[in-house]
Amino acid sequence: MPIPAPLTGVVPPVCTPLTPDREVDVPSLINLVDHLVDAGVDGLFVLGSSSEAAYLTDAQRRLVVETVKAHLGGRLPLLAGVIDMTTPRVLDHVASVTAAGADAVVATAPFYARTHPAEIARHYRLIAARSSVPVFAYDLPVSVHTKLGAELVLELAADGVLAGLKDSSGDLGGFRAVVTGARTHPGVTGFSVLTGSELVVDSALALGADGAVPGLANVDPHGYVRIDRLCREGDWERARAEQERLCVLFGMVGVGDPGRMGSGSAALGAFKAALYLRGVISCPATAEPQVPLSEGEVERVGKYLATAGLL
Amino acid sequence: MPIPAPLTGVVPPVCTPLTPDREVDVPSLINLVDHLVDAGVDGLFVLGSSSEAAYLTDAQRRLVVETVKAHLGGRLPLLAGVIDMTTPRVLDHVASVTAAGADAVVATAPFYARTHPAEIARHYRLIAARSSVPVFAYDLPVSVHTKLGAELVLELAADGVLAGLKDSSGDLGGFRAVVTGARTHPGVTGFSVLTGSELVVDSALALGADGAVPGLANVDPHGYVRIDRLCREGDWERARAEQERLCVLFGMVGVGDPGRMGSGSAALGAFKAALYLRGVISCPATAEPQVPLSEGEVERVGKYLATAGLL
Amino acid sequence: MPIPAPLTGVVPPVCTPLTPDREVDVPSLINLVDHLVDAGVDGLFVLGSSSEAAYLTDAQRRLVVETVKAHLGGRLPLLAGVIDMTTPRVLDHVASVTAAGADAVVATAPFYARTHPAEIARHYRLIAARSSVPVFAYDLPVSVHTKLGAELVLELAADGVLAGLKDSSGDLGGFRAVVTGARTHPGVTGFSVLTGSELVVDSALALGADGAVPGLANVDPHGYVRIDRLCREGDWERARAEQERLCVLFGMVGVGDPGRMGSGSAALGAFKAALYLRGVISCPATAEPQVPLSEGEVERVGKYLATAGLL
Amino acid sequence: MPIPAPLTGVVPPVCTPLTPDREVDVPSLINLVDHLVDAGVDGLFVLGSSSEAAYLTDAQRRLVVETVKAHLGGRLPLLAGVIDMTTPRVLDHVASVTAAGADAVVATAPFYARTHPAEIARHYRLIAARSSVPVFAYDLPVSVHTKLGAELVLELAADGVLAGLKDSSGDLGGFRAVVTGARTHPGVTGFSVLTGSELVVDSALALGADGAVPGLANVDPHGYVRIDRLCREGDWERARAEQERLCVLFGMVGVGDPGRMGSGSAALGAFKAALYLRGVISCPATAEPQVPLSEGEVERVGKYLATAGLL
Repeated sequence: MPIPAPLTGVVPPVCTPLTPDREVDVPSLINLVDHLVDAGVDGLFVLGSSSEAAYLTDAQRRLVVETVKAHLGGRLPLLAGVIDMTTPRVLDHVASVTAAGADAVVATAPFYARTHPAEIARHYRLIAARSSVPVFAYDLPVSVHTKLGAELVLELAADGVLAGLKDSSGDLGGFRAVVTGARTHPGVTGFSVLTGSELVVDSALALGADGAVPGLANVDPHGYVRIDRLCREGDWERARAEQERLCVLFGMVGVGDPGRMGSGSAALGAFKAALYLRGVISCPATAEPQVPLSEGEVERVGKYLATAGLL
Repeated sequence: MPIPAPLTGVVPPVCTPLTPDREVDVPSLINLVDHLVDAGVDGLFVLGSSSEAAYLTDAQRRLVVETVKAHLGGRLPLLAGVIDMTTPRVLDHVASVTAAGADAVVATAPFYARTHPAEIARHYRLIAARSSVPVFAYDLPVSVHTKLGAELVLELAADGVLAGLKDSSGDLGGFRAVVTGARTHPGVTGFSVLTGSELVVDSALALGADGAVPGLANVDPHGYVRIDRLCREGDWERARAEQERLCVLFGMVGVGDPGRMGSGSAALGAFKAALYLRGVISCPATAEPQVPLSEGEVERVGKYLATAGLL
Repeated sequence: MPIPAPLTGVVPPVCTPLTPDREVDVPSLINLVDHLVDAGVDGLFVLGSSSEAAYLTDAQRRLVVETVKAHLGGRLPLLAGVIDMTTPRVLDHVASVTAAGADAVVATAPFYARTHPAEIARHYRLIAARSSVPVFAYDLPVSVHTKLGAELVLELAADGVLAGLKDSSGDLGGFRAVVTGARTHPGVTGFSVLTGSELVVDSALALGADGAVPGLANVDPHGYVRIDRLCREGDWERARAEQERLCVLFGMVGVGDPGRMGSGSAALGAFKAALYLRGVISCPATAEPQVPLSEGEVERVGKYLATAGLL
Repeated sequence: MPIPAPLTGVVPPVCTPLTPDREVDVPSLINLVDHLVDAGVDGLFVLGSSSEAAYLTDAQRRLVVETVKAHLGGRLPLLAGVIDMTTPRVLDHVASVTAAGADAVVATAPFYARTHPAEIARHYRLIAARSSVPVFAYDLPVSVHTKLGAELVLELAADGVLAGLKDSSGDLGGFRAVVTGARTHPGVTGFSVLTGSELVVDSALALGADGAVPGLANVDPHGYVRIDRLCREGDWERARAEQERLCVLFGMVGVGDPGRMGSGSAALGAFKAALYLRGVISCPATAEPQVPLSEGEVERVGKYLATAGLL
C-alpha cells in the first residue's frame, strides 16, 4: 500500500521476538503485530533499533518483513529499516525489504565510516534513486555518531529524496526546526516528521509533529494511541497525564544493572520481559551478545507493569 | 595455511580497487597483491577499513577474499575482516570468508549497538567458538566508538579466544600494555600484537610489537618492509629515517578538502590515487557515498609520491 | 531579597556589554537591565554562559554583580553564576558574588577535571554548606562534558542542597524527569526547574517547568514574557505561535561563518549585535579570543530583527 | 633564569601536597622539590594537572609558585601552569605566576567555551604578547576537549608565539609531526617538544622529543632521569627495560575503585599516597571534591612501590 503523505499517528518500532536459541519466533511476532494493530496504531516499523535490527542476520531480517507483511496485508503501512554502514550495503537491504513487501524504508546516515554532510546527502540521494518506495531518514546520534541537521533534512525533503524523518536524537529544538520547516520550506509537501522519543510525545505533537515511533509502544500501545488522540482533540492536560504515566513505565529500562550490561541490553531486555510477562511473546530472549536480565530484574519489570495497570 | 603464532612483520590492509561503476576491479586487485607480495610483506589483510569493507556488499566482500586467495595460494597468510555490527551478523561473515579461504578473521567490538565490556568479551568468545580459524581483535575507536582495554584483550588471549590484536587506536601507551602483557600474562602464548599506525611503526616495533598493518603500505610496501627489517636488526636510526620519510608521504591523506569531504574519503581517496598514479590499479574510484578527490587534489598526491621517490 | 521557592517565569541570563577595549561597559549594562526589567521579566541571572562568564576576569565578574545589584536593588531576584573548574575555586566565587549582593548562586558540575557522580554530589554539598544563599545547579553538557542525572538532582533537592536547576542540556526527556520528580519525590519542596532552551520554552512550561532562562531573552524579553503569560493562561496555541516567531529570530546565531569562528562566538556575537542594533548597548564587542562578526554578518542580524518586528 | 631553548630532559609536573584541611602543605612541597632536584631532574613544572591546579584557589596557586621559586632559586627552570577557561582569565594568572617568579608559563587552549582553531591561535598570540616569559602550549584533550593540531603548533612556533609544547594527548603520531616539524619547519628554532606520557617516554625520546613531563616522576624521578640518560646514550634496550618497570609502577593509578571515584581522583590519589608512603610528603590528601583512596587502596599502592623497589 502507498504510505500516507504525511504518515501520522503512532507507528511502533516492532520488537523482534526470539526463541531461546535466538531464531525469529514467528508465532510471537504475529501475536505482537496483533497486539499492536488491535490497539489502534497507525503503522508498523520493523527492523529498527528496537527491533534489534543491528543483531539480526540478513535471513532473519527478511523473515521478519515477510512474516509481518503476510500477516498485516494492506491493513496498515509497513516501514522497514535498512540499517547498515554505507550506501552499497544499505541498497542491498532496500532491495531485500521491498521485495518482501515493505511500503517504505528507513535509513540512517552512514556509520562506522567517518563521514561528511555532503556524503550523507549523497547517501540519501543514491538510496532514493534506487528505492521503489519512499525513504525515511532515521536520526539516531547515539548509534550513528552524527546528527542530521534540520537544513539538510529539509533540503532533501524539498528535493523529493526524503518522505519523512524519524528523530531519535532527543533534541526537541532541532526537531522543531524540521517540523516548522516542513510547513514553511519551499517545495516540501507531505513530509512526515516523527519523534522516536518515549518521553515527550505530547510535547512533540503539541509543536506540530505528525506522529511518534516510541519503542515503549510495544509494551503499551494503547497508551501512546491515547496520547495521540488526546493531542489531536486538544486535550493537552489529559495527554500530559497519560504521557507522565508512560514516563514512569519507561523507568523499566533502568532495571538492568549498568555494572553488568549495556544500556541497550537493559532497554531491549526490559521491553521483551514486559511483552513476555504480558503474554504477548513466548520468550524474552534478546540477541547475542546482549546480557540478559536476571530473574530479579525481570520481576522488577513486572512491578512497573503492575504500577501502570498492565498486569 | 595456518597463521604463524605469533604473526609478525608487515601485513598490509589491502585496498579494494574498484571499477568506475564501483564493482571490484579483479585484475587491479591481483596486481595490487603482486605489488605487495613482491615487496616482501609477511601477510595480507583484506576487508579491513582501508579495504573499504564498510562499503562493500556481501557479494563484493566474498569476491575479494576468493580473488586474493586464489591468486595468493598458500604463499602468505591471509587475514580477512568480518566487520559488522554484532555477533550474529559477524558470524555470517566468518562463515563466508573462511569458506572463501581466509586463514584468520579480524573482528571489531560491536558497534551501532550501545555495548558493555562484558558484552564485548561475550562477542569475541562466541565468534571464536564458531570460527574454524584464529580470531584477531581489531581496535578502532574512531569507527567503533569503544576502546578495547588491555586487560580484556589479555584475558581473551589467555583463554585462547584471541590470536592477536590489530590496534588502530593511536594510544601507544595502551598498546604497550598489551605488548608487554603478551610476554608476561599467565597463559598467553603466540599472541600477535600488531599496530595499525602508519606513523609510529618504528616505535611500536621498538617496544616489542610483532608487526604492523599500515594502510599506507599499499602505496609504499617497500618502505614498511625496510622499517621492519631495520628494527629487527636493531638499526633504530635508519628505521627512524625511513619512518620519517613515510610520515611525510602520509601527508597525502590531507590533500582532500575537509570542507568538501570526510577524512575517510580523503585518506582512502589519496591511497587509491597514489596506487593509480603508480600504475598499480586502473581506476582510483572509491565507494559511494564517498566524495572523490578533485583533479587538483590527485595532482597533489602525485607530488607526495615524487617527493618520496615513488614516481 | 530571598529567592522565591520556587522561582518562576522568565529569568534572562544577562549579557555582559563590553567596551571596545573589552572592559565591562557599565552604562550599557544598566541599560540592558532596564530593558529586561521593563519587559516584565521575573529575575536576572548574571555571570552565566550567555554573560561570557568564562571570559570575564574576577574583577570584571565582581563589577557586574555590584553594578546590577546596585541598579536593581530588591526589585527582582538576582542569581549569579559561579562558573569555575572545581569546588575550592567555585567557593571563592560564591564568597565574591554573595558579598556583591547575589540572592542565589548557580554552579555547574566540576569540569576540566575528570569527575564521577559521587564527586559531583560532593561538590554541590560542599558549595551549599558554605553558601549563605540558595544554590542552583547548571546543567550544560556542551561546556561541562558531563550530564547531571535526574536522580542526582532530585536527591540533592530532597536534601536541601539544591534550590533549583537551570537545564541547558537540550534533553527534554531528562528535564521532564526532574519536573515531575520535583512534584513527587519525597522531601522535595519549592524546587525550581528552569529550562535554558530558547526553542522549546512553551513545551517546557507545558510539561510543568517553573520558568525559562533563554539567552535570546536579552534580545527580545517581551517575547519570552508573553510565552510565559500565555502558557500560564493555558493559551497553548498563541504560546506556540510566539515561540515559533522566536525560533526564527534565534536563527541569528547561525550568521557567523563556522569556517571562521566557533559556535559560541557566533551566538554571543549575534546577541550582542542585536542589542547594539536595537540601541540597548553601545558596542557589540565580545571578549577575547572570540572572533567578532563581520559587518555583513551584523547586517544579517539586523534582518532577523526586522523580520521579528524588533527594529 | 631564562628557560633553555629548547628545554630538554625530565621536567616533573610537581604535585601539590595538601594538609588534612586542604591548605598547601609548604614544608611537604619543599621536601618534594628536594626529592625531585636531588634525583637530577632538569626543570620543574608547577600548577599543571598533576599539581591539581584545577582545584587550587588563586591564593593557593600563588603560594605554590612563591614557595617553589624561593626554595629552588635559579637552580632549575621553573614553569608554571596558567590553567583557566579563556584568554582574559589566563592573562591574570600569567601576571600572577610571573610576579611570583615563574620562568615560563604553560597554557591550554580555551575550554568550557566552544572554540575554533582560529580562536585558539588568537588565544596564544594574545597570551604571548602580554607575557614577559616564554609560553608553552599544553595539549590535554581529555580535559580541554580539543586537540592542538601539529600545523597550528608549528605555525605559532615559527611566529615566536610558542616556546614549546607539553603534549599529553596520547597521540604519538601527532606528537611526532611536531617533533620533526620543529626540526624542519621554516622559522622554528629552539622549540621544545615534551611528552606528558608516563608510558612511552623512551619512544618519545627515540623519535626526537626534547624531554618528558610525566606525573609519575613525582613518585620515581630517578627512573625517568635514568630513561632520559639511557636514551641520550643510545642504550635503547636498557631504556626500554626501565620504562617497562615504570609502566608496571604506573598501574597504581588503577587501584582506586572506578565505581566510587573518577579516574583523576584515582591517579592523583595514588601519586600522593605513594609520596606519603615514601616519606616525601606528610599527608596524602587530595583537593575537594575528589574522593580519597580507601585504606586498602593505599595499601595496594604500597605494593606497587615495593614491587618497583621504592619502599
